[in-house]
Amino acid sequence: MKMDDPHGKRMPGGVVTLAHGGGGSAMRKLIENVLLPAFNNPLLAALEDQATVPLAELLVHGDRLAFTTDSYVVTPMSFPGGDIGKLAVCGTVNDLAVSGARPLYLSCGLVIEEGLEMAHLAMIVESIAHAARLAGVSVVTGDTKVVERGAADKLFINTAGIGVIPAGIQISASRAQPGDAVIVSGSLGDHGIAILLARNELALDAAVMSDCQPLHGLVAVMLGACQDIHCLRDATRGGVATVLNEFATSSRVGIRLREAALPVNETVRGACEILGLDPLYLANEGKLVAVVPATHADAVLAAMRAHPAGLEAAIVGEITAESAGNVILSTAFGGYRVVDMLVGEQLPRIC
Amino acid sequence: MKMDDPHGKRMPGGVVTLAHGGGGSAMRKLIENVLLPAFNNPLLAALEDQATVPLAELLVHGDRLAFTTDSYVVTPMSFPGGDIGKLAVCGTVNDLAVSGARPLYLSCGLVIEEGLEMAHLAMIVESIAHAARLAGVSVVTGDTKVVERGAADKLFINTAGIGVIPAGIQISASRAQPGDAVIVSGSLGDHGIAILLARNELALDAAVMSDCQPLHGLVAVMLGACQDIHCLRDATRGGVATVLNEFATSSRVGIRLREAALPVNETVRGACEILGLDPLYLANEGKLVAVVPATHADAVLAAMRAHPAGLEAAIVGEITAESAGNVILSTAFGGYRVVDMLVGEQLPRIC
Repeated sequence: MKMDDPHGKRMPGGVVTLAHGGGGSAMRKLIENVLLPAFNNPLLAALEDQATVPLAELLVHGDRLAFTTDSYVVTPMSFPGGDIGKLAVCGTVNDLAVSGARPLYLSCGLVIEEGLEMAHLAMIVESIAHAARLAGVSVVTGDTKVVERGAADKLFINTAGIGVIPAGIQISASRAQPGDAVIVSGSLGDHGIAILLARNELALDAAVMSDCQPLHGLVAVMLGACQDIHCLRDATRGGVATVLNEFATSSRVGIRLREAALPVNETVRGACEILGLDPLYLANEGKLVAVVPATHADAVLAAMRAHPAGLEAAIVGEITAESAGNVILSTAFGGYRVVDMLVGEQLPRIC
Repeated sequence: MKMDDPHGKRMPGGVVTLAHGGGGSAMRKLIENVLLPAFNNPLLAALEDQATVPLAELLVHGDRLAFTTDSYVVTPMSFPGGDIGKLAVCGTVNDLAVSGARPLYLSCGLVIEEGLEMAHLAMIVESIAHAARLAGVSVVTGDTKVVERGAADKLFINTAGIGVIPAGIQISASRAQPGDAVIVSGSLGDHGIAILLARNELALDAAVMSDCQPLHGLVAVMLGACQDIHCLRDATRGGVATVLNEFATSSRVGIRLREAALPVNETVRGACEILGLDPLYLANEGKLVAVVPATHADAVLAAMRAHPAGLEAAIVGEITAESAGNVILSTAFGGYRVVDMLVGEQLPRIC
């Protein structure tokens, strides 16, 4: 079977077989015909067992290496606003970006279920490559394993990422101080609801796009407005509530949130009400939570709102000395409730 | 259920649930009770979304960063000589080591099938930690995903690795030159046959231990004997035959192998004869293939044989100008045959 991809290129036919993970000629053909053309960079093309980068090239960007990893198991593999490939790039780019690092290099480990359409794999690989180009990173090393039918669910992707943090940036979950402002970069829960709807298990007729996007550009303008950002984290699994609890615990401070200030899209809010979900716990894949000195909060907010990834950014609360270790929400009705860490699992296979 | 681990510590009870991958409190407990104590290092313990290392600390070791990744899907998860955890460390350490790099940091991404015994997971994690200590590397960043029962086969592990290559070392698959000697570090195919036997699908009553081991120490003594090693690669999936074909293709040279010189354990040889397998194509997880200038071959061989990971090292052939791109085996019977790249898959889920 041959089919055209969205960019008009010819897609390879057939399905992935165990031989494509065997280390021999079939794997080499998969690498040479599908992976190398998509990722297209000399470090990967050398086909050594490791990519090599002069440390001098890293020193241009800063004084510390940042290193992170994530595996991606989302189902369905494609959803409004993205797919597992785009997610695998953005998720790892964002884990680097929230340290203030400039993301530079990615690894890509594929675990493929035997029988996956080669054309489908090629589309996901093209999506990885496209997202990497947009995020300014190169996929420089990789690995492909194929497991028997039934031993995995179509495709899992692991990416690890390397970036470099500029001198002077000191972002950490432990640096929140009483008086600091809490900012979120936009609407909460879009990714979680988009995945839920894409599963077609609900009778809800609603359209929600995942917010899946790289955040390094947004972080760069934030640091331009204030070098001394205290805490920064992207709110993925566990949502904003979990990130804020991590900040409160690591920094030994309280956090006061204003429910009315939380940006939530109407469709997401409606879906949450029907399904009994709380947007504070829903996964995002292109939203971050920042804690910044109060004196710089307006400048950071203005910089965020001038960036495409932060148009709906909002100051949603502040750090307090009291209630150390806890996140307290002032509800829209004038009451208060404690926002705990997520207990249990709202939605599996979300990222 | 509680059980004791081999080191006499108490193992956590129960099974892994979807909540352990949800990003909330159950995942945090898994991280704090199982992963952090095992991996025990301050970079990971900071629980930031990324590990941070001063570039100045890397420059102490050399001038180039090496970066690699591998996913591990071996079945069964435990086998004579190792398990998936030890494999996940050694495999990635070895992909760094064969560049001449000193391996320094690992990431660890776990994809766990819901229902895996928590005690089993803890044993594998302890095995990762133990292997990392032996290899002198730290697991500094990680990720845990849990997928529904049936969506994965118990446990897949991805590790990415970072190392630093000392100035002056230039190892590459493209550097083989006519006249160079080809050395293998020990017996071929132990890992492949060990896995096959561990599956209990054969009526063979034989004991073979996997050779799963880190090779950075062996590489260090080899570089001590000759800084100018031309090619170096560990012979995993696809075996020694595949590595040599990669060298022949990348370097545009021929390779002449002497079958009689290839070290193969008697049990492995016997199993291969019964099963119709060729030790040249079997997976190894603690053996490397080196191409070195002929003038240094004896010195490198002597250094290898003085190291525990190279006791059975042997010169098995040489690089030729003729037959460029091909590997030719002089058989024990005085004939010749071309050793192609592996076509198809000898054994799936081997690593």
